[in-house]
Amino acid sequence: VSSIDVEALAARVLAGERAALARALTLLERDREVALQLDAAFGRSGRYACTVGITGAPGAGKSTLVSALLAEATARDQRLAVLALDPVSPLTRGAILGDRLRMESAAADERVFVRSMTADARAGGLSAVTPLAVRALEAAGWPGVLIETVGVGQSELDVVEAATTTLVVLNPGWGDEVQAVKAGLMEVADVFVINKADREGVEELQHDLERLVAAWPARRWRPPIVRTVAHQRLGAAETWAAIGAHRAWLEQRGELAARRRRFLELGLRALARERFDAALQEVLGSAAGESLLQRLASGEISLPAGSIELAARAAQPAAG
Amino acid sequence: VSSIDVEALAARVLAGERAALARALTLLERDREVALQLDAAFGRSGRYACTVGITGAPGAGKSTLVSALLAEATARDQRLAVLALDPVSPLTRGAILGDRLRMESAAADERVFVRSMTADARAGGLSAVTPLAVRALEAAGWPGVLIETVGVGQSELDVVEAATTTLVVLNPGWGDEVQAVKAGLMEVADVFVINKADREGVEELQHDLERLVAAWPARRWRPPIVRTVAHQRLGAAETWAAIGAHRAWLEQRGELAARRRRFLELGLRALARERFDAALQEVLGSAAGESLLQRLASGEISLPAGSIELAARAAQPAAG
Repeated sequence: VSSIDVEALAARVLAGERAALARALTLLERDREVALQLDAAFGRSGRYACTVGITGAPGAGKSTLVSALLAEATARDQRLAVLALDPVSPLTRGAILGDRLRMESAAADERVFVRSMTADARAGGLSAVTPLAVRALEAAGWPGVLIETVGVGQSELDVVEAATTTLVVLNPGWGDEVQAVKAGLMEVADVFVINKADREGVEELQHDLERLVAAWPARRWRPPIVRTVAHQRLGAAETWAAIGAHRAWLEQRGELAARRRRFLELGLRALARERFDAALQEVLGSAAGESLLQRLASGEISLPAGSIELAARAAQPAAG
Repeated sequence: VSSIDVEALAARVLAGERAALARALTLLERDREVALQLDAAFGRSGRYACTVGITGAPGAGKSTLVSALLAEATARDQRLAVLALDPVSPLTRGAILGDRLRMESAAADERVFVRSMTADARAGGLSAVTPLAVRALEAAGWPGVLIETVGVGQSELDVVEAATTTLVVLNPGWGDEVQAVKAGLMEVADVFVINKADREGVEELQHDLERLVAAWPARRWRPPIVRTVAHQRLGAAETWAAIGAHRAWLEQRGELAARRRRFLELGLRALARERFDAALQEVLGSAAGESLLQRLASGEISLPAGSIELAARAAQPAAG
């Protein structure tokens, strides 16, 4: 891809061409050098989107909720994009959610854009690629972006925390819900969605969440608790309203700019970490890394001293 | 803490004093400068432990399994240490598992050493502190260390993957087990433990796991599937045997050294990342970081270009 091609592609994305946007997202995913040029063009667009991060344990019904929210958006004649994050499996080296492709092909409606992004979550790749993808969607004029994660790993938490509004999806009957609180998932919630709310245990879960929210610091946003049966589209309107209420609260408090800043900070940090991790890996695979590991194994240097040497070498690409 | 104190403390740890070990672990947790001196002394001991990482979803019964394995160890008159990892809650800034203290105080047996380690999992702190703690336990002469994680986040996966043997704890009736496979948890397993095996659905889970293991690459270790009812100590002997079988396989293949190397590599990388992340945070909080964010928000620079500038500043502490 030459520089001229990239500039022409960026112009087509800014003009709202869907095929150009799809191509740009593929390039952002695969090639960080091209990403540098593309993102520079997108950043000058001055366009912003509100993002909604959706997280929760595997099987909680996040994809179904996304489908219900897409239907809600089109019923309201609003345009909505979806970024579905697919971690790459370290074992198979392939993306693990082939069913996402079906979701993409189903999005024939002009008011909807669905895209899955693939990266190695273990290497923090999803945290790095997501802000780039969001900025591409913004530049293409999408006013709202749902970001759906697969699991509840660190990388996913970073991603959803960078969103304007974060939805945490839970199910009734999860046993000891306090365990989920312990896992840190609850603290990122701006809206709690009790999905599969037609199941037994919904009152207990509602009660647990109400107690949790009641203990929130007073000046903090108190996350509303919404019940959904996403596969029947029940509760989609209420979820939509809760997202809107949170956004209004942020606007009223002048907090939207702070969220935007957090998004940019997390993007900067994720990309910086990605480069640093790649440099660490390169040093560890080199003769210098071999020597370092041998001196460490023999007790000649300590683990912290070794890590300082490793970081210093990683910061000097020429010495790698 | 002066240097002389630290050297005296290290000597007492090497002599096997329990109180000195407990004090050293606290210092390693809190102060990376002291850690540098302590770890240098521990690294010269030339002692190694076999480590067993235990992971699985919250509520799967990991702590109960650890208790059952401790009982199994003492029944065999073997010495065993436990590191229980407690992520710090970003909301409360406190450790989230107070019940761990009970577990520690219960360990009155001389052949057992139980310790919880606290760090901010979101900042990768657990990945950094765990190898330091393991090296302290090794230096103190503990031949085996169980490492118990709270959840299944990225930080926890890094930690258990650095272990000699990794146990993945599952429960029957978890619904779509394939979801767990997708979450990447299965790929780190050296031993599958079906805990709460007296519950319905155990045959289905066993069958699912057998199919999964059958699809493993041929040269890879095939994880045995063990059934336990940990709160009744059922299956603890089988779990112990499965851990031993995996270790014997590693020894026979000459793979123990490779696992040791991976442990040291992950430790180096985690400590290097921890320092880098702290430096990034410092730059972002400085006037230079403020200027960077403003230029990014205005479209003057791109996200990737900003991340390169950020990383360069983070690598030069004087310019921070």
